[in-house]
Amino acid sequence: MSLKEARGLDAADPLREYRGQFDLPDGVIYLDGNSLGALPKATPARLEQVVTGEWGDGLIRSWNDADWITLPQRVGAKIAPLIGAAPNEVIVCDSVSVNLFKLIGAALAMNPARKVILSEPGNFPTDLYMIAGLEAQGLAELRLAAPDAIEAALDGDVALLMLTHVHYKTGRTHDMIRLTKAAQDAGALVLWDLSHSGGAVPVDLTGCNADFAVGCGYKYLNGGPGAPAYAYVSGRHHAALSQPLTGWMGHAAPFAFTDDYAPAPGVDRLLAGTPGILGLAALEVGVDLIAEIGIERLAEKSRKLSEFFRSCVSARLPDLELVSPLDPLVRGSQLSFRHPSAYPICKALIARRIIGDFRDPDILRFGFAPAYVSFEDVCLAADSLAEVIATREWEKPEFRERAAVT
Amino acid sequence: MSLKEARGLDAADPLREYRGQFDLPDGVIYLDGNSLGALPKATPARLEQVVTGEWGDGLIRSWNDADWITLPQRVGAKIAPLIGAAPNEVIVCDSVSVNLFKLIGAALAMNPARKVILSEPGNFPTDLYMIAGLEAQGLAELRLAAPDAIEAALDGDVALLMLTHVHYKTGRTHDMIRLTKAAQDAGALVLWDLSHSGGAVPVDLTGCNADFAVGCGYKYLNGGPGAPAYAYVSGRHHAALSQPLTGWMGHAAPFAFTDDYAPAPGVDRLLAGTPGILGLAALEVGVDLIAEIGIERLAEKSRKLSEFFRSCVSARLPDLELVSPLDPLVRGSQLSFRHPSAYPICKALIARRIIGDFRDPDILRFGFAPAYVSFEDVCLAADSLAEVIATREWEKPEFRERAAVT
Repeated sequence: MSLKEARGLDAADPLREYRGQFDLPDGVIYLDGNSLGALPKATPARLEQVVTGEWGDGLIRSWNDADWITLPQRVGAKIAPLIGAAPNEVIVCDSVSVNLFKLIGAALAMNPARKVILSEPGNFPTDLYMIAGLEAQGLAELRLAAPDAIEAALDGDVALLMLTHVHYKTGRTHDMIRLTKAAQDAGALVLWDLSHSGGAVPVDLTGCNADFAVGCGYKYLNGGPGAPAYAYVSGRHHAALSQPLTGWMGHAAPFAFTDDYAPAPGVDRLLAGTPGILGLAALEVGVDLIAEIGIERLAEKSRKLSEFFRSCVSARLPDLELVSPLDPLVRGSQLSFRHPSAYPICKALIARRIIGDFRDPDILRFGFAPAYVSFEDVCLAADSLAEVIATREWEKPEFRERAAVT
Repeated sequence: MSLKEARGLDAADPLREYRGQFDLPDGVIYLDGNSLGALPKATPARLEQVVTGEWGDGLIRSWNDADWITLPQRVGAKIAPLIGAAPNEVIVCDSVSVNLFKLIGAALAMNPARKVILSEPGNFPTDLYMIAGLEAQGLAELRLAAPDAIEAALDGDVALLMLTHVHYKTGRTHDMIRLTKAAQDAGALVLWDLSHSGGAVPVDLTGCNADFAVGCGYKYLNGGPGAPAYAYVSGRHHAALSQPLTGWMGHAAPFAFTDDYAPAPGVDRLLAGTPGILGLAALEVGVDLIAEIGIERLAEKSRKLSEFFRSCVSARLPDLELVSPLDPLVRGSQLSFRHPSAYPICKALIARRIIGDFRDPDILRFGFAPAYVSFEDVCLAADSLAEVIATREWEKPEFRERAAVT
């Protein structure tokens, strides 16, 4: 678990050349790519082209000439192979939250005799909150069941099982095949939130027969802060798909400007308003890079990185409680530890230019974006974590003050 | 109506210095800023700073250190004086379409005994389509009334009157004071779509006692293609405001990660997912520029430009049918003409580098973004329009083929 060993692993890493394609600040060890992915070096030039060339010179003509109008479908098709989907089953638009609302609405419309949306306590908040919005409208009823009680909670009232594949806090994964089948056997549809999976963890939406999915553009896909999200609808539902945010860009003929709504084919009808081109263009660069590496190689390195970090931490801090699963095959590309002083420890590490994440109230979370994190990074991070805890460096007053965003 | 006269008007134009703050392509006359506003010269450098500095170097820390987290409120507060709102009544987020859905939902929640959303036929399609989405959910009922029949249609079933202030096709304005009062007298709430007003036409949301409004960031605010939109809620409704897209960024404590939704104060609860920072940052540059000029000066120049263009066209093409109101005080910052060959005429003008717009089936639309359009521009555009029609230049086959986006 030494630096020498880490350097040996880096030398043998088939992805080592990709680190140079990201613009990481000197001296920073970045273990928070699962919160905001790093900047691809190609992104600034592409944005400059979009802004100065396509917007500035092309002006309104660029909707056709620079093919802005098909960006949501084009980027969606590039994300598809990362999540086991067909190219025409994925589209990029809006945020994860807004796409959840659309697809919960779609599930309720397809399963009109049922109202219950089943999820788990402690799911990522926005997932639960979006159900709450539909509940306040009288359209849905939220039901929560702990992971081991989900199958028992699948009764004849459940319209939709909606879960996050990789848990944002612990990294624990759900068994997508087993739970999708159980829900469908009980007459429910299934929506998977892939925010902490897409681009780092293998997902096979086709193989598990998923109905719907959403995912995040700004984590492992490196699309930039608040990048647009993606949404997936299985091809078998395209004809019947109906979602509540029926905006003009999801119309069969947006530029006919008719009074009556008529849905565009397939996932195109998930579009609502005018797509944000700057965000889409930046996301495309990140997706191109991740798609070039391929999900198999990314996932393999992710598991090796997290296992190496776990060994390094375990050797240095045997008493630090791991809250992520021990088995790398049932966790995402992250490791989380519990410590009552997680917040100031996280701050003390950031002061040492080792950027991990804190999750309320007591979780230290480290993400391993396999495209640019090295074994040396995680070895040095484990060294610093051990020092910060051993020396109680985190007790300095400046590490206690809570920022607006944690 | 001569070029000499136009140049005289430009020389006397108090806004003439602002044209230099936009990066307009050489030789292009751009009369489509009401579809996509021009690029401010300051935008590329600001985006470079956001991308390379704040994202690339700052990484996740920039949510605090670069104040990304308050961008929606900050840009909203800057838009507020352009539309007669208080700074805390406006927030920037999502698209016009998605914000319409939120505010229609809010109106239905505040007026629970009523279901009818009253609008007019031929309103901008997405406005009508978003009502259709709520109608399909069984929550709303769409009623359409022609402009002169709106007041008569305001019965005890109308929950919300929802209109666009400046009509996208004709430029006709509605009397916001009269219609808002009529609706409120009938027990309805009022939502104004300011997409074709904000930044070019005076709007006084406070003065007309509006309940809700939405508006577009990529037209007269020059925020870039698909820029995020803004939403307004009168301060008197902040305490009771409830909207269906209850995402984590609209939560009272997003980083407490609790299972239960609790709304943030005021318009903050209109936020749903993570805001797109690239789009917001670009929009802020456009808004700063427009806010610096001020709506009074912009509106005055807008009226002068459209009147001058109308006179130029009328002198050259006396038979061309104007579909916009004659009175500049009751129209927006645009002029629309009807011609059976509007599409190829528009294309022929674009080939001459005079960019106007076509709206199905037979409308030629010219917008006058007062911050950068000159009197010389509109004089030359009128000359070219007259030549294209007189010589039947538009009959060339290449001008007939319809593009995807028109």
